[in-house]
Amino acid sequence: MSEKFVSERNLKFLLYEVFDATSLLQHPYYEEYNRKMFDMVLAAAMELAEGLLWPNFQEMDRNPPELVNDQVKVHPSVRAIMREFGKGGWIAATVPEDMGGEQLPHLIADTCQFIFAAANYSASAYGGLTRDAAHLIESFGTKELFNTYVPKMYAGEWQGTMALTESEAGSSLSDIVTVAEPTDEGYYKIQGQKILISAGDHDAVENIIHLMLAKIKGAPPGVKGISLFVVPKKRIDKDRKLVPNDVVTSGIFHKLGYRGCPIVQLSIGDKNDCRGYLVGEPNNGLRYMFQMMNEERIGIGMGATAMATAAYYASLEYAKKRRQGRRVSDKDPTQPPIPIIEHADVKRMLLFQRAIIEGSLSLLMQCSKYVDMQKVSSDEGKEKYNLLLEILIPVAKTYPSEMGILSISQGLQCFGGSGYCDDYPLEQYYRDARIHPIHEGTTGIQGIDLLGRKVLMKNGKALKLYVEEVQKTIASANDIPELKPYAEALEKALERLQNVTKHLLEVASRESAEMFLADATLYLEFFAVISIAWQWLLQGIYVQKGLKNNPTDSEADFLQGKFYTLRFFFAYELPKTKGLEERLRNTDGLTVEMETDHFSD
Amino acid sequence: MSEKFVSERNLKFLLYEVFDATSLLQHPYYEEYNRKMFDMVLAAAMELAEGLLWPNFQEMDRNPPELVNDQVKVHPSVRAIMREFGKGGWIAATVPEDMGGEQLPHLIADTCQFIFAAANYSASAYGGLTRDAAHLIESFGTKELFNTYVPKMYAGEWQGTMALTESEAGSSLSDIVTVAEPTDEGYYKIQGQKILISAGDHDAVENIIHLMLAKIKGAPPGVKGISLFVVPKKRIDKDRKLVPNDVVTSGIFHKLGYRGCPIVQLSIGDKNDCRGYLVGEPNNGLRYMFQMMNEERIGIGMGATAMATAAYYASLEYAKKRRQGRRVSDKDPTQPPIPIIEHADVKRMLLFQRAIIEGSLSLLMQCSKYVDMQKVSSDEGKEKYNLLLEILIPVAKTYPSEMGILSISQGLQCFGGSGYCDDYPLEQYYRDARIHPIHEGTTGIQGIDLLGRKVLMKNGKALKLYVEEVQKTIASANDIPELKPYAEALEKALERLQNVTKHLLEVASRESAEMFLADATLYLEFFAVISIAWQWLLQGIYVQKGLKNNPTDSEADFLQGKFYTLRFFFAYELPKTKGLEERLRNTDGLTVEMETDHFSD
Repeated sequence: MSEKFVSERNLKFLLYEVFDATSLLQHPYYEEYNRKMFDMVLAAAMELAEGLLWPNFQEMDRNPPELVNDQVKVHPSVRAIMREFGKGGWIAATVPEDMGGEQLPHLIADTCQFIFAAANYSASAYGGLTRDAAHLIESFGTKELFNTYVPKMYAGEWQGTMALTESEAGSSLSDIVTVAEPTDEGYYKIQGQKILISAGDHDAVENIIHLMLAKIKGAPPGVKGISLFVVPKKRIDKDRKLVPNDVVTSGIFHKLGYRGCPIVQLSIGDKNDCRGYLVGEPNNGLRYMFQMMNEERIGIGMGATAMATAAYYASLEYAKKRRQGRRVSDKDPTQPPIPIIEHADVKRMLLFQRAIIEGSLSLLMQCSKYVDMQKVSSDEGKEKYNLLLEILIPVAKTYPSEMGILSISQGLQCFGGSGYCDDYPLEQYYRDARIHPIHEGTTGIQGIDLLGRKVLMKNGKALKLYVEEVQKTIASANDIPELKPYAEALEKALERLQNVTKHLLEVASRESAEMFLADATLYLEFFAVISIAWQWLLQGIYVQKGLKNNPTDSEADFLQGKFYTLRFFFAYELPKTKGLEERLRNTDGLTVEMETDHFSD
Repeated sequence: MSEKFVSERNLKFLLYEVFDATSLLQHPYYEEYNRKMFDMVLAAAMELAEGLLWPNFQEMDRNPPELVNDQVKVHPSVRAIMREFGKGGWIAATVPEDMGGEQLPHLIADTCQFIFAAANYSASAYGGLTRDAAHLIESFGTKELFNTYVPKMYAGEWQGTMALTESEAGSSLSDIVTVAEPTDEGYYKIQGQKILISAGDHDAVENIIHLMLAKIKGAPPGVKGISLFVVPKKRIDKDRKLVPNDVVTSGIFHKLGYRGCPIVQLSIGDKNDCRGYLVGEPNNGLRYMFQMMNEERIGIGMGATAMATAAYYASLEYAKKRRQGRRVSDKDPTQPPIPIIEHADVKRMLLFQRAIIEGSLSLLMQCSKYVDMQKVSSDEGKEKYNLLLEILIPVAKTYPSEMGILSISQGLQCFGGSGYCDDYPLEQYYRDARIHPIHEGTTGIQGIDLLGRKVLMKNGKALKLYVEEVQKTIASANDIPELKPYAEALEKALERLQNVTKHLLEVASRESAEMFLADATLYLEFFAVISIAWQWLLQGIYVQKGLKNNPTDSEADFLQGKFYTLRFFFAYELPKTKGLEERLRNTDGLTVEMETDHFSD
């Protein structure tokens, strides 16, 4: 195992310099905190990550969950991990104090979640799902539902899940057929099948609380007939005892990676004895569930970035130690080989990784800050930050998921043949990371969400607000001579983004919705590269500030490394938008027009 | 398992229409063959692939090799597979008849190898390595060496390997320390360690014949002191019996994929009783080994393409069957869901795969044809085809290896969550394929080989010949109205390639070798995209010919599908060269100048 999975220096640079976490303290909601307390929270997260999560990272992969007599058995460390998540207040970190939480800013809590995911993504998923499931009950459920389920979830004693997918309804939730029949006792009888449910059953907790989508008998077809239920694995009987609720684990999936966390198939109500409890209003379930989906999407962006970050530090460590070959300009074989980090192509692979992970993390922290600002703002501010989040969530989910895979792949490449073998953790990261472009909405779905919904919403207001935010950064950077070329490059790219968007909106009005959305995935990529360039420029402002502020040698190395990475992103990654733009302006309708028969051979 | 792993229609289109395999029959060397015999050979290859290789594809992955008491045990089917490779004449397919072979054109034999690799890459590797190791003895060894080893290898009774890598000498062969000490008996005593040796030991054959690089005591330092030896696992004693030759399997690597074939560590001469037999002249070993490396590199491009091809057909089959969602322009939930192949974004993912696999296969067949033409040409022709191969080998190895991974990843994405689980073969392809950018020279090494050696060789003659070949295709396509826009696009891209090359050569003369080669990997990518566009344009000529020739409906579907894929490549892939060109013209020296300390945190 490598020695390092995150850079605390980088986390603090982003938290305190770029995103000015302490500025949140001026809001009454956060006034109980101070910088020292934030640091203590981060230190506690590192301690838990280093002491319990990281040591079990490989172990949990090599001893994956098993289904034994309808019960999923997970690695023994999961019980300790869930208890620590509960005891340490990590599951309820951002929950208001009066509801039993820590009332921490998301900026701090999400950074802790990042640390956990970098140490052991599978382990972090148990806590994250429980947190977001509990939040759903807290936001839309009755006080009784809250009191019955949420405290146990915050304590890490009960697991929360999101139970959406069915075998005939994966990306298309409108086709779910799990049914809920009202009873006179107030609860609903649930019957159906769910598949691919993360942490959907395991023996490290006493109960599993599914936040489940189902259709009440007679509900309208499609998404307008979807309701949300709390469906526990075990319900509470009259004597306050836990008894089975007719939710049976009927299968476990054998996965490429992400093996520390089970993904299961559930049979619900086979004996017609499964009780579900409605959350909020009937037929409003999908709207509620979007809260959880959005939180999960940011969580997945964070997890993808975290995994790629740990992979980067492993490959960096190897590249510094491993000696191989000589400079291309001096091949004297009698001289000793040089560390491979001195080869330009290896530096390129390391810079590529660093550009992706530190750029992605910056964008995710930007989102966390918007969540916090939304919380403490008045109505107008609330709308602004909400819209910024709406437009950024598909980007913050997808860029780290897609590019994280390539980043890890370059990390693996730094190891050569050793990267392909399980003596090093890279092969595990490579397997683990492949889930991210799939779960919580595939990349294709995110593209359609961005272009087909978010760009259009409120007459383009979200996009307008986004452009203003980027322009603010450009304006600040323009005043710093070292950043001027990059500010100008981003300004041009941003204009191109606006022009391409305009072009696509013309396609939408002139041609079919299918033509408009045919290359939505590429539009998302285009949008994302510009968003990461924005975040690098934003970091550049604080890099230059730091460099002018008499840094120590090691501080100067860190900041200069950052600046090299900024330059790398603008020189190697931003140019990719050229090709994307050319494609997005091409309205040949190739993928709309081609017929299935043309794939006949 | 899916039903199909290759398209015979596509193979025949490429073989007989694009590359006109029967034109080879005019050369006396191939005059014993005819079209019908070629077809029979292909049918026999399909039969072996379907009957023996494909059924063991998943099996061999799930029951990987084990090291038991110094002996590697492989899946029982490997013995049958090697015997069939031998009996069917597949190992010696291209060997002249008078040396015990079938004297088949490479174009045909390599297509058969492609079929084998698509059905089961690991299985195909045993045969491919044996073929190329035997060829090395045939080309540079004595008649005695040939007679002792090669017939058994052709028969599939003995395994061949290439034993190059050592723990301190992976990409840098100049640092190998395995030593060879001359004896009075004519053989050498070998001592050393080799790692990562594919098929380096197993129990499906009676003997393992290592083609091993070592340094004769007192040889010059670096690559100039490397010699080539035949080092058998078991040598033949005076009584013509096989006895141990002090080559011990000291370890087996646990790999991400490619698990059907063992990769091992060897301890050689620990008891000072390992005999090696010099091949050719002392200190010329690396030059000889380049023959095998070049053959392996083409083989790996072929294998990478084959794997991605099988993955494509699996995802195509799934996309046709799986129903999910509705057209974005008609979302009525009371209507049944449509097969996902009808979604534009899924078609885009399928076209991406098809563009890569059929483009790559075309380039590889182009290489095979050059090998055949080299064989039957006079001296001047020999040099021409040899130079074309020299410049194309890094491209034909790397493009399918790198893009094959992305192609398989898109195939996996078509399956959604199911692609991540082992109920479908995509997760295996995803693991298996990751080896290709690593083995037989990493992508970084290939980039330096292309720009630093091949482009420069014989005063740029190889590049000049390449440009002429591409221009020939452009000229032919220019006469076909449907192809004119693509011919023009390729012409411009080819000019840009030449200008970028010129620019880089100026950098070489003005600045350091390190500056010149810093982005060699990206230059290779740039070169490769243009090469694949060339191959698509070439295919386009025969597509248009076919479409004008009263095709049947199914034939027209095939040809139109091809044409859509050609258009896709030019519309989605070729534009990527814009960003690459921008980078390659940027001489900021970022990756040369950045220091290790800048990676300090």
